[in-house]
Amino acid sequence: MNILIVHAHPEPQSFCSAMKDLAVATLSDAGHSVQVSDLYAMNWNPVASAADFNEPSNRDYLVYALEQRHAHAKGTLAADISAELDKLLAADLLIFNFPMFWCSVPAILKGWIDRVLLSGVCYGGLRFYDRGGLSGKRALLSFTLGAQPHMFADEQAIHGELEPMLRHLQRGTLAYAGLSVLPPFAAYHVPYITPQARSSILADYREHLELLDRLEPLNFPTMAGFDRQLNPLPREELV
Amino acid sequence: MNILIVHAHPEPQSFCSAMKDLAVATLSDAGHSVQVSDLYAMNWNPVASAADFNEPSNRDYLVYALEQRHAHAKGTLAADISAELDKLLAADLLIFNFPMFWCSVPAILKGWIDRVLLSGVCYGGLRFYDRGGLSGKRALLSFTLGAQPHMFADEQAIHGELEPMLRHLQRGTLAYAGLSVLPPFAAYHVPYITPQARSSILADYREHLELLDRLEPLNFPTMAGFDRQLNPLPREELV
Repeated sequence: MNILIVHAHPEPQSFCSAMKDLAVATLSDAGHSVQVSDLYAMNWNPVASAADFNEPSNRDYLVYALEQRHAHAKGTLAADISAELDKLLAADLLIFNFPMFWCSVPAILKGWIDRVLLSGVCYGGLRFYDRGGLSGKRALLSFTLGAQPHMFADEQAIHGELEPMLRHLQRGTLAYAGLSVLPPFAAYHVPYITPQARSSILADYREHLELLDRLEPLNFPTMAGFDRQLNPLPREELV
Repeated sequence: MNILIVHAHPEPQSFCSAMKDLAVATLSDAGHSVQVSDLYAMNWNPVASAADFNEPSNRDYLVYALEQRHAHAKGTLAADISAELDKLLAADLLIFNFPMFWCSVPAILKGWIDRVLLSGVCYGGLRFYDRGGLSGKRALLSFTLGAQPHMFADEQAIHGELEPMLRHLQRGTLAYAGLSVLPPFAAYHVPYITPQARSSILADYREHLELLDRLEPLNFPTMAGFDRQLNPLPREELV
């Protein structure tokens, strides 16, 4: 497999960065080809703007998604976006490795999503979910957080369940673009735990990565369940 | 009221920008004092990094939340963050006005959240939800999106319900920091609709803003329902 790890932590000595290093080692040892986009090290620009298009189709009024399509067709996308898109399209597995900031990805990684998941390539028209532009590829969120597992245990927990908190990423982003989303790896309580507990999380993460092929992807809608206006079809109309 | 609108659209002529302008006019006419942080116009830096701290307590290992606390105590926060934090602390109502990018805010706005919602000021220890640092203030999401309402109508809809898709923002961010979250204003299907339909959305938005005081905030956990380890308390232990 070709694997792309998009990593977004500002501290190279952090536990989150150790998770990235472990993933590179474990997946390379298993015979995969692994690339890392270390967004902080690359000084990645996260801001989607008119500057992303060298020869915009409309200089007077920016419609970002339309300019993405135009620039892709003409080969006039900003070089930093093109380079990441090439890595993404070559990948069979995409891993986002990050510290949870405000129940989501850090802005630098959100800006990778905003700029690289190109309209017309990764999604567009009725090409989303199982018909998304990235279908056939898999994705995995792997992240650190300060909270403990019981705080996301169920809807009565202080923060409710983890799935809805991550829905914008796993469903609204990855699954939407066609990726098959594997169960996430959450490294809980990281700032507060002993070195021994950290080692044990790394061992768990290694196992998660070694068993990737046995992980059942999460369930998301399939387009066959909806009409062209995206209303759910009555069950009897489904084949 | 003091109102802070944090606006994040790259095109000043966009419908989303018109919503921001309408909010400024409507809320000013109602006698409120309105400030706008127009993140694209300000060239806001969304990347949380060591550069945010003029005199870090630890130059060798960045723990972002700890440096936020240290810098706030010493008055050594980056000037752009300080300026936004002052606006936030002076506000009674915070409005995020944005185009939905990937079921969330654009990266430039995510970076306002990451950098301005300071640890030790906006949250920390057991100060979150109704005990959060920003309690007593209200918040509102107001956003444009390409989707139509039926696509978020219920859990059987193509994208499921809107609430879980927005949970990371409304619960994991705003409510977590203590803000009382008003029902969001979603401007659906914006790229595809007629000028008449757009005018009608603006009229609806004006009404939403004029009736703010009659809107019931969304329901989130209160800390009284949880023990110090943040396990839910049995109902009989609640007063």
